[in-house]
Amino acid sequence: MKYLFTPGPVPLPHEVASSGARPMIGHRSEEFSALLLRLQNRLRDLLKSSGPVILLPSSGTGALQSLVENLLRPGDVVISVSCGQFGLRFREMASRMDCQIVPVDVPWGGAVAPEAVVEAVKAHPETRAILLTHNETSTGVINPIHAIASALPKERPLLLVDVVSSLGVTPCLPEAWGVDALAGASQKGLLCPPGVGVVWLSPRAWEALESLGHPKSFYFDLLGYKDSMERLQSPYTPPISLCYSLDAALSLLAERGYAKWWKERRRFAAAFAAGVEAMGLDLLVSQKRHRSPGVTAIKTPEAKRLKDVLYGMGVEVAGGLGALNGQIVRVAHYTDMAWPEMCLILGSIYGAAKSTGLSVNASFLDAAQRVWEEDVPCGKC
Amino acid sequence: MKYLFTPGPVPLPHEVASSGARPMIGHRSEEFSALLLRLQNRLRDLLKSSGPVILLPSSGTGALQSLVENLLRPGDVVISVSCGQFGLRFREMASRMDCQIVPVDVPWGGAVAPEAVVEAVKAHPETRAILLTHNETSTGVINPIHAIASALPKERPLLLVDVVSSLGVTPCLPEAWGVDALAGASQKGLLCPPGVGVVWLSPRAWEALESLGHPKSFYFDLLGYKDSMERLQSPYTPPISLCYSLDAALSLLAERGYAKWWKERRRFAAAFAAGVEAMGLDLLVSQKRHRSPGVTAIKTPEAKRLKDVLYGMGVEVAGGLGALNGQIVRVAHYTDMAWPEMCLILGSIYGAAKSTGLSVNASFLDAAQRVWEEDVPCGKC
Repeated sequence: MKYLFTPGPVPLPHEVASSGARPMIGHRSEEFSALLLRLQNRLRDLLKSSGPVILLPSSGTGALQSLVENLLRPGDVVISVSCGQFGLRFREMASRMDCQIVPVDVPWGGAVAPEAVVEAVKAHPETRAILLTHNETSTGVINPIHAIASALPKERPLLLVDVVSSLGVTPCLPEAWGVDALAGASQKGLLCPPGVGVVWLSPRAWEALESLGHPKSFYFDLLGYKDSMERLQSPYTPPISLCYSLDAALSLLAERGYAKWWKERRRFAAAFAAGVEAMGLDLLVSQKRHRSPGVTAIKTPEAKRLKDVLYGMGVEVAGGLGALNGQIVRVAHYTDMAWPEMCLILGSIYGAAKSTGLSVNASFLDAAQRVWEEDVPCGKC
Repeated sequence: MKYLFTPGPVPLPHEVASSGARPMIGHRSEEFSALLLRLQNRLRDLLKSSGPVILLPSSGTGALQSLVENLLRPGDVVISVSCGQFGLRFREMASRMDCQIVPVDVPWGGAVAPEAVVEAVKAHPETRAILLTHNETSTGVINPIHAIASALPKERPLLLVDVVSSLGVTPCLPEAWGVDALAGASQKGLLCPPGVGVVWLSPRAWEALESLGHPKSFYFDLLGYKDSMERLQSPYTPPISLCYSLDAALSLLAERGYAKWWKERRRFAAAFAAGVEAMGLDLLVSQKRHRSPGVTAIKTPEAKRLKDVLYGMGVEVAGGLGALNGQIVRVAHYTDMAWPEMCLILGSIYGAAKSTGLSVNASFLDAAQRVWEEDVPCGKC
């Protein structure tokens, strides 16, 4: 058997994988419009917003690209907040568009402090947009987007948020939080294969877009998408099999209940973290409240060997990216994992750590179970 | 039962649909690199080229967008040849990029004459690129790309070709033909679900790209893709389930033998055309040699009703796009259709035509069968 613990793609629920194999339908058919309407309603529920949600035939990076190309213009001042590799990627996109970047850099493993963003906005009142990452997959940090948005002055730049690795696994409530644009993807918290980008804009961002007009990119023209969506169409061929999968996955999440699901994912993350620490290994993210419910990074000088030994056992985890290459292993827990999977992954890490000569304690399962059995183990959802 | 005769998405072979439902793998794994290598080799075989083939997480429109963004710059003079809606779309992309468009327009239903392209190049020697559509899905025309390329002077602009609806269903040999860039897609002749864009560049186009440098689009950066491909990686998350499907589909085509497959598709198209004409309905494309092996357009003032009646029977065909809206129905035959499917589609059209009050002749099957049983019915492949 093979076990996938990478932070996207994630193992698919059976219903999701089998739905994707259903026969094709024409994308100009009534059936497809009905599917699109269902997806639209489910995503609106998930985001607690009545606004349109755009589905792009792209990876999450494409969804981010669409935000940059639609909402930014050359010369715009952009505050780019980064606490890891994916924050830098978002920045690179704006930089390619010839925006003037105001970097706000947070040490990797830490979260973004609202004050740091507020200060940057005060120092650059001409700023057009702020780029933020909700869940930084490269470090396993989740940023307090709500707190950041709340700390900003009322007259403020557009707030563009990368939710590629947070959407589905944790509350993501742009309307309630005062966010202007989200870019997400199918293959992590939405429990689908990769290939669908998800974009949401606030009424204010749609207005900004109307005044900016069509972007240079025909493919990523969000106004064109919105016009099509109003007729329950896609401007060009949508990834139909992936839409089937998304429909099945959103149905699973809705049946489970979002609040319950989010709590379960947090509980798994907290118990897993407790197990890893009890084993004697370090977590990259020291502050509990900033730990991601989707992915956990273990910091060890033996990261590369640990990852390779796990791979040899049939357990695939991810390594570090960029500056953290060779320094961490990343274990994802986006899917419906419970106690048996906890034993599998903690036990495998324990065995692999011993094989690589690391000194580890055997009491890790007790520590994990204590957290697992707490009733409300990890704060409100 | 439902029958899909739309020009993409097309009905999937069982092996293709079921392969797409296989468990996810990490995209940084050895398994994924092996899959990418296999896809690379199969696509090189299909194109008869040793150059790299790029797979994009996008629809075909995204693959075209990548050509425009990488190979054109604002102000470039671009000859845009159009004989239908998709030629216009390619033009719109270059126009959005602020290129200077030299339009060459061919009446819809006709093919592009090499002389028209040669004349435009002579009149605009400063031209940076020529945009061409191989198979014009909106009319059912296939253009003589090889003849066009051969007619051009040796020192010539870059030749960028939309093969979205030709790749897989007909020979597409860019190296032998002297083409510089191709953009294709998964959901038509490649018999897959939508969601993968395919890009091929000639050594000359790669050189042009090196000298132009990285495009403004991070997502569609083909140089970045090429660098990743050399390490058998994808720069960001690839659509893994669709890669599985593509692997299965290319394997089917290779087993069947490309030349045989292309001949079978042409034979189906020719026999279908004969059947439609014998029924007394008009084809949009009057010249046999310009008829697409993948899609056939029937011209009738009752197009909308004919399409609706067929839809009511469970047979989905496409209507006309743009200027041909309400004037044609389009029937696709990309997949493994043979005589039984011929009877199904011709008989359904016959029944639907009678229901809509069209005067049709009953002898259509004989006419189709005569062409079907000819040994080499439709020219060389």
